[in-house]
Amino acid sequence: MAKKATIVWTKVDEAPALATYSLLPIVRAFTKDAGVKIELRDISLGGRVLAAWGKAPDDLAYLGELVWKPEANIMKLPNISASIPQLVDAIKELQAKGYDIPDFPEDPKTEEEKKVREVYAKCLGSVVNPVLRQGNSDRRIAKPVKDYARKVAEKRNWMKPVPENSKSYVAHMKGGDFYENEKSVTLKKDTKIRYEFVDKNGNVTVMKEIELGEGDVVDATYMNREKLREFYSEVLEDAKYNDILFSLHVKATMMKISDPVMFGDAIRVYFKELFEEFGKELEEIGFNPNNGLVDLEKKLSKLPEEKQEAIKKKIEEIYAKQPRLYMVDSDKGITNLHRPNDVIIDASIPAVIKNGIQGWGPSGEVDDCVITVPDRSYATMYREIVDDIKLNGQFDPRTIGSVANVGLMAMKAEEYGSHDKTFFPPADGIMRVVDEDGNVLLDHEVNAGDIYRSCVTKKIAIEDWVKLAVNRARESGEPIVFWLDAYRAHDRELIRKVNEELKKYDLTDIEWHIMAPPEAMKYTLKRFRQGLNTIAVTGNVLRDYLTDLFPIIEVGTSARSLSIVPLINGGGVFETGAGGSAPKHVQQFVKEGHLRWDSLGEYLAFVESLKLAYKQAGNEKIKILAETLSEAVGKYLENDRTPKRKVGELDTRGSHFYLALYWAEALANQTEDKELAEKFAPIAKALKENEEKILEEIRATEGSPKDIGGYYLPDDEKAEAAMRPSKTFNDIIDSI
Amino acid sequence: MAKKATIVWTKVDEAPALATYSLLPIVRAFTKDAGVKIELRDISLGGRVLAAWGKAPDDLAYLGELVWKPEANIMKLPNISASIPQLVDAIKELQAKGYDIPDFPEDPKTEEEKKVREVYAKCLGSVVNPVLRQGNSDRRIAKPVKDYARKVAEKRNWMKPVPENSKSYVAHMKGGDFYENEKSVTLKKDTKIRYEFVDKNGNVTVMKEIELGEGDVVDATYMNREKLREFYSEVLEDAKYNDILFSLHVKATMMKISDPVMFGDAIRVYFKELFEEFGKELEEIGFNPNNGLVDLEKKLSKLPEEKQEAIKKKIEEIYAKQPRLYMVDSDKGITNLHRPNDVIIDASIPAVIKNGIQGWGPSGEVDDCVITVPDRSYATMYREIVDDIKLNGQFDPRTIGSVANVGLMAMKAEEYGSHDKTFFPPADGIMRVVDEDGNVLLDHEVNAGDIYRSCVTKKIAIEDWVKLAVNRARESGEPIVFWLDAYRAHDRELIRKVNEELKKYDLTDIEWHIMAPPEAMKYTLKRFRQGLNTIAVTGNVLRDYLTDLFPIIEVGTSARSLSIVPLINGGGVFETGAGGSAPKHVQQFVKEGHLRWDSLGEYLAFVESLKLAYKQAGNEKIKILAETLSEAVGKYLENDRTPKRKVGELDTRGSHFYLALYWAEALANQTEDKELAEKFAPIAKALKENEEKILEEIRATEGSPKDIGGYYLPDDEKAEAAMRPSKTFNDIIDSI
Repeated sequence: MAKKATIVWTKVDEAPALATYSLLPIVRAFTKDAGVKIELRDISLGGRVLAAWGKAPDDLAYLGELVWKPEANIMKLPNISASIPQLVDAIKELQAKGYDIPDFPEDPKTEEEKKVREVYAKCLGSVVNPVLRQGNSDRRIAKPVKDYARKVAEKRNWMKPVPENSKSYVAHMKGGDFYENEKSVTLKKDTKIRYEFVDKNGNVTVMKEIELGEGDVVDATYMNREKLREFYSEVLEDAKYNDILFSLHVKATMMKISDPVMFGDAIRVYFKELFEEFGKELEEIGFNPNNGLVDLEKKLSKLPEEKQEAIKKKIEEIYAKQPRLYMVDSDKGITNLHRPNDVIIDASIPAVIKNGIQGWGPSGEVDDCVITVPDRSYATMYREIVDDIKLNGQFDPRTIGSVANVGLMAMKAEEYGSHDKTFFPPADGIMRVVDEDGNVLLDHEVNAGDIYRSCVTKKIAIEDWVKLAVNRARESGEPIVFWLDAYRAHDRELIRKVNEELKKYDLTDIEWHIMAPPEAMKYTLKRFRQGLNTIAVTGNVLRDYLTDLFPIIEVGTSARSLSIVPLINGGGVFETGAGGSAPKHVQQFVKEGHLRWDSLGEYLAFVESLKLAYKQAGNEKIKILAETLSEAVGKYLENDRTPKRKVGELDTRGSHFYLALYWAEALANQTEDKELAEKFAPIAKALKENEEKILEEIRATEGSPKDIGGYYLPDDEKAEAAMRPSKTFNDIIDSI
Repeated sequence: MAKKATIVWTKVDEAPALATYSLLPIVRAFTKDAGVKIELRDISLGGRVLAAWGKAPDDLAYLGELVWKPEANIMKLPNISASIPQLVDAIKELQAKGYDIPDFPEDPKTEEEKKVREVYAKCLGSVVNPVLRQGNSDRRIAKPVKDYARKVAEKRNWMKPVPENSKSYVAHMKGGDFYENEKSVTLKKDTKIRYEFVDKNGNVTVMKEIELGEGDVVDATYMNREKLREFYSEVLEDAKYNDILFSLHVKATMMKISDPVMFGDAIRVYFKELFEEFGKELEEIGFNPNNGLVDLEKKLSKLPEEKQEAIKKKIEEIYAKQPRLYMVDSDKGITNLHRPNDVIIDASIPAVIKNGIQGWGPSGEVDDCVITVPDRSYATMYREIVDDIKLNGQFDPRTIGSVANVGLMAMKAEEYGSHDKTFFPPADGIMRVVDEDGNVLLDHEVNAGDIYRSCVTKKIAIEDWVKLAVNRARESGEPIVFWLDAYRAHDRELIRKVNEELKKYDLTDIEWHIMAPPEAMKYTLKRFRQGLNTIAVTGNVLRDYLTDLFPIIEVGTSARSLSIVPLINGGGVFETGAGGSAPKHVQQFVKEGHLRWDSLGEYLAFVESLKLAYKQAGNEKIKILAETLSEAVGKYLENDRTPKRKVGELDTRGSHFYLALYWAEALANQTEDKELAEKFAPIAKALKENEEKILEEIRATEGSPKDIGGYYLPDDEKAEAAMRPSKTFNDIIDSI
C-alpha cells in the first residue's frame, strides 16, 4: 500500500497569496486521489506577527523543524521581507481586526519596549530563507520554459548583436585583490577560532570568536585598497583614452560590508580632484562616498550656497575630464556611481551583455564600456564570456544549450556568510585567525582601512553539495564542472574535499571535471554554443552570478528559472517567484478586479515538488501527475496563457483555468495509468466545452473594485470568492 | 635603362660556407643577366680575425655602414659566434698559414696583452647580428614550405594528440611579477637618465647612466622574489597533488641576468629541505643554484665523503616527496633543473605542446605536466593556447593557417636589451630612474635581492615597426594584430604610439587590431583553426616565442622560417639557418666527402632578396627570377631533394643540382619573359638529360676524405674543387 506524501504549500503575502486562493483548490483536486496531501502553512507577515504573540500557530518554527526531516516537501512562494514601515502597517491592520498586540516601538526605551522590539525583530527583513534554506542550491531552466524561449526568440531575439570591433572589455586587478591574498585552512578538529588584530606594537585586539567543527573550511583574505585605487585609475585612464563608458560592477546589496567600500573607492578615485580641493567641506557635511553620489546630493545643502556652486562646478569639470559614466537610468540622470545598491553585478553584467556588450551613457547614448570587476575571484569568468562573444558573436537563444547550477549555499557558505567576519583594520598591522590552542591558522599583513574578509564553509554543506552535483549529473546525464581554481586558496581546500567525496560515489557514466573559472567558462561556452547542456557546480557567489547570467541569455530573464533547495536531510524546498510578491498587482486587483500575477513559477516548482513526492510516497500516479503537469506547462506557454496587463484580458484566474484544462487533457491522453486517464477524460471534456463560459464568468467580475478583507491578513472567504468567481469552473474542479 | 642591384652574399664558416662554394656559382649564373650583381663579403671568424689586425678588408665594418643605406640587400648565412676555444683554434690556423698575428692572451696582464685582448674581443661571441640587425623582424613561413608541410603531415603528423582529460596546464603568478610591477614612461625630451638605488637611510647609489632621446620609451619593473618562491611552492604542491610532472620554462640564455635567478629560486624551493639541513655545507663549497644542479654535482666532491652521502640521501628523499621533474633528457638523467640553459622556453613549450602537452618524467615515462612560466607578461598567451588545445583538440598541420610575425627588435628593443639595466638591489630600498633634471621618472620599492629590470625602446624602432606591420598587412592582405595590453605599463605607452603612427598611413583595406596577449591569442587561434592567416605584431620577447611556437606547429620546425630584417632605411637582411653552422657536417665532409647541409634556408631567403632587388633595380627579370625560384623550391620539397645523411645518398651538391634543374625548368616554362624562357630552355634540357651523369660524377667523389685546406680559413680553390666535382654540371652552369 502506497505511502502518503505531504506537500507544504506556503501561505504568503500579496499577489502570490491571492493567486493561491484560486490555484490551490485546483492543485488539491488534481492530486488528492494520488496520495498527496497539500497542507497550507502560514509564513505571511501577518501570520508571523500573530505567531510571535502566540495568537496563531508558529508555522515557520514548524517548517524550521520540518526541513531537517526527510519527508519535507515545501512549496516556498515569495513572501514579504518586511521593512519597518511594512511591519507597522501590518500591526495596525491586525489591531484593527481585534488582535491584542502591542505597537511597534520605533525607538524603544523601557525594558518592556525593548522586549517588544525583540519580538518584532523576528518579523523583520529576510527571516524565512535562513530558516528554510537548509541545503544547497539546484537551479535550472525547466524544459517547457527552454522550449518556449527557443520559439519566442524566433520572433523577438533579446540578445542584441555586438558591434564590429567592440571596444568593450572586462577589467580586473593584476594583484593585491581578494583573489591573490586568500589563505585557507581545513580545521583538523572542533575548535573555537578567534579573529585578532595585532598592531605594530604587538597589542592584540580580539574582533570576534566563533565555534567551528572538524572539516570546516576557514578562509581569510584582504583587498589592498591602495592597489584597488591604482587599478581604478588605470581603468579610468583607459576608458577615457578609448572614449568608452566606465562601468563598475559590485554587489553592495549582498556583500553589504565590503562592497560599499569598493564602490566608495571608485568615487574617491573618479572625483579625486574634488576631494583634494574640497576635502574639508565634504568631511564637514559628512559625505560618505560608500553611500554613493546621492549622499553628496542630500548633504550638499548644508554648505553655504557659494561653496555648493563651487563644488557643482568642480564636479562638472571632473565629468568633462574623466571618462563618461555608464548610466543606471540615463533618463533620470542616475549614474553608475549614484547608489551602491543600484548596480548589482549579477544583473548588471548580463544586462550589458544582452545589450551587445554596451551600456547607456550620460546623454542617453548607447556605447561600448569597460566592465570593471576588481576582484579576480569573479572577474575572470566574465572576461572569458565577454571575450567569447566578441570573438564568436552574440549568443543565439534559438540554438544554445543550457547551463544549470549546483551551488554551495547551505549554512551561509563562503563569502555570502562573511558579513560578520569582515573587518577594516584600524591601523597597519596583522589580522589573524587563531584557534583555541593558540595556533595561528591564517595571518595577513594589512594596511589600515584595507578590507579584511573571512569566510566559513561547513563540512556538511560541502559534502551535501558534492552529493547534489553527482545526483544532478546522474539524473540529467549532463557533465558537471566544479568551478574551482587550484591557485585560489579556498578552492584548493575544496578541490581536495571534492576529490575525497567523489570517491564515495559510483561515477560510472558520469562526466565530471574540476576547472578554474576561466577554463570552466571556456568549456561550458563551447558546449553552450553547440547546443549542449552543462551543469556548473560552483561556490555561493558564482552560483548567484551564473544563475542570472545564463538564464538571462537563454530565456531572457532569470525569473523563470527553477530554484530548488534539496535539503541536506533529503527533503526539498521549491522556491518560486524571483520577482518578489508584487504589491502593485494587489493594488490593481483591489481597484479593478484584474490580477496579473503569473503562477508559472508555482507550476514549474510544483512539477518538481511532485517528483519529490513520488520519491517519498512511491505512488506511480504522482509521477504521472508531475509529467502531465510539465506537459501542461509547455502548452500553457506555447499558447501564451500567461496573464495580461489590462482589465478584460486574460488574468491570473483565467490562466489557472487553462492550466487546469491542459493538465486534465494531458492526464486524459496519457496511457500509463488508465484509472487517471478515465478519471480526467470527462474533466478535460467539461473544461474544454465550458471554456468560453468560464472565461466570461471571470471577465464579468472585472472592472470593479474587489473587497478581500485586508492586506496583510485578508479574509479567506472574501478573498476566495473574489479569486474563484466562475461557478462553472468551481463546480468542475470540486467534482474531481 | 634598368638599374643594377647588388646583393651581398656573406662568406661564413663551416657547413654553410662549404655549401656556398657550390651554390654561389649557380645563383650568380642564373641572375647575372638580370641586373643583379652578387658580391661576397667575409664575416667568417677567420676573416674577422684577419680584419681585426688589418690583414684583410674589414667587411663587417663595410656591412655595418651598408645596412643604413637603402640599397643594402644582404644574404646573411649562419656564422660562428666564437667561444674562446674556437677563437684560439682559429688564431693558430691563421698563424700556421703565415699570418703574423699575436696569440690570444687568456689572462692579459701587460698593457700590450690587454690591447691584444681588446682587439680580439671584437671577434668573440655574437658580433655580427648586433651590427646587421638594424631593423625590426619579419618572420614567416614561405608558401612552398607551408604547402610541403601540409602534404607531409598527411603521412606523418608531428602534432601528437592530447590525451582525454589532460591534467597539463600553464601556471603563472597571481601578483608580484614583472607584469604587475611595471612602470613606463615616454621621454618628453632628449636626456641622460640614471638608475639609482636609495637605501632606507636615504643614501643614493648611481648604478648606471644612459643617454636617451625624445620619444624613447623607458620601463622599469621588478620581480618580487618572495612571491616568486611562494608561487613555486604552490605549483609544486599542485603538481604533486595531481601527480604530474613539474616543468619550468624560462630563457636564461637570452635573459642572462634575470632568468638564471628565477631558475635558481625554483631549485631553492624544490630542494628547500636540503638548504635547511645543509645550507652551511652548500655555501662552503660555493654551490650556486642559479647555475643548476650540475653545479652541485661538480662541487659536491669538495665535501667529506660522509657529507656527500648524506646530501645525496637527502636529495633522494626530496625527490620522493616532491613532484616528479620534467626531464630534458631522461635517458641521461638530465632534469629540468639541471642547467639553466637547457630549458629554453621558446623551444621547450612548443616541444611539450607538440608532444600532446606532455613531457618525459624521471623514469622515461610520458606524462602530463604543469608548464610553469612565472611572469604573466608572457605566460598568459601560453595559457590560452594550451587551454585551446585541451578544449578543441590538437592542431592539424594539414588544415591550420599560418601565423607570421612582425617583431619590435631594432636597436635592442625592450627586455632583450635589458641585461645592462638589470640589478639586484643590495638592500630593501627604492630603485628609481631619474632624468638629468633630477625628475624621478620611475620608482619602485624593492626588497634586497629582488630582480629589478629596466628596458629601453627607441622611438625610431617603434615607428619602423608600425610601418613594417602596415606594409606586411598591405602586401599579404592578412589582418595584423598588435599584441599589446593596456594594463601593462610598457604596452600602454606603445598603444598610444601605435595609434599615433597608424594615422600616418592609408589603412583602407587593412584589417588591424590591438589586443592584449590572451585575446590576441584567442583571435589568432580561431583563424588558425579555420585555416586563415594572421600576422602577430609583437614586442621582442613575444617575437622570439611566437616565431618558434607557430612554425613548430605549422611545419614541425622553426628552422624553415623565413627570417627577414627589413632595415630601417629601406634595405634588407635575409637571414638563413636557425640551426647554426653545423660543425659536425664539416667533419663528415672532410672524413668521407659527403655534405648534408640543406641550403633550403638560403633558397628561401634568396627569393626574398631577389624581390627586394627587384624593388631596388626595377628590372622585371628579377621579379621572374624570384617567382621561378620560389616555384623551384616547391618542387625541390615536393620531390624531397633535401640532402640525406649517409655517404652515397644525395648530398648538398646533388641537391643544388636539383635546385638548378627546377629553377631552369621554371624559367623555361614561364611565359612572362620570352627572353628568359628561351635562354633557360636549353639549360633545363641539358640539366635534365645529364641528371644521372651529374649525380654519378658527384657520387663518385664520396666515401673518401676531402682536403679543403683549412677549417677557419679554407683554401678557396681546394674547397671549390671539392664542392664542384661534376664537370658536366659545372660546364652547363658556367655556360649560362
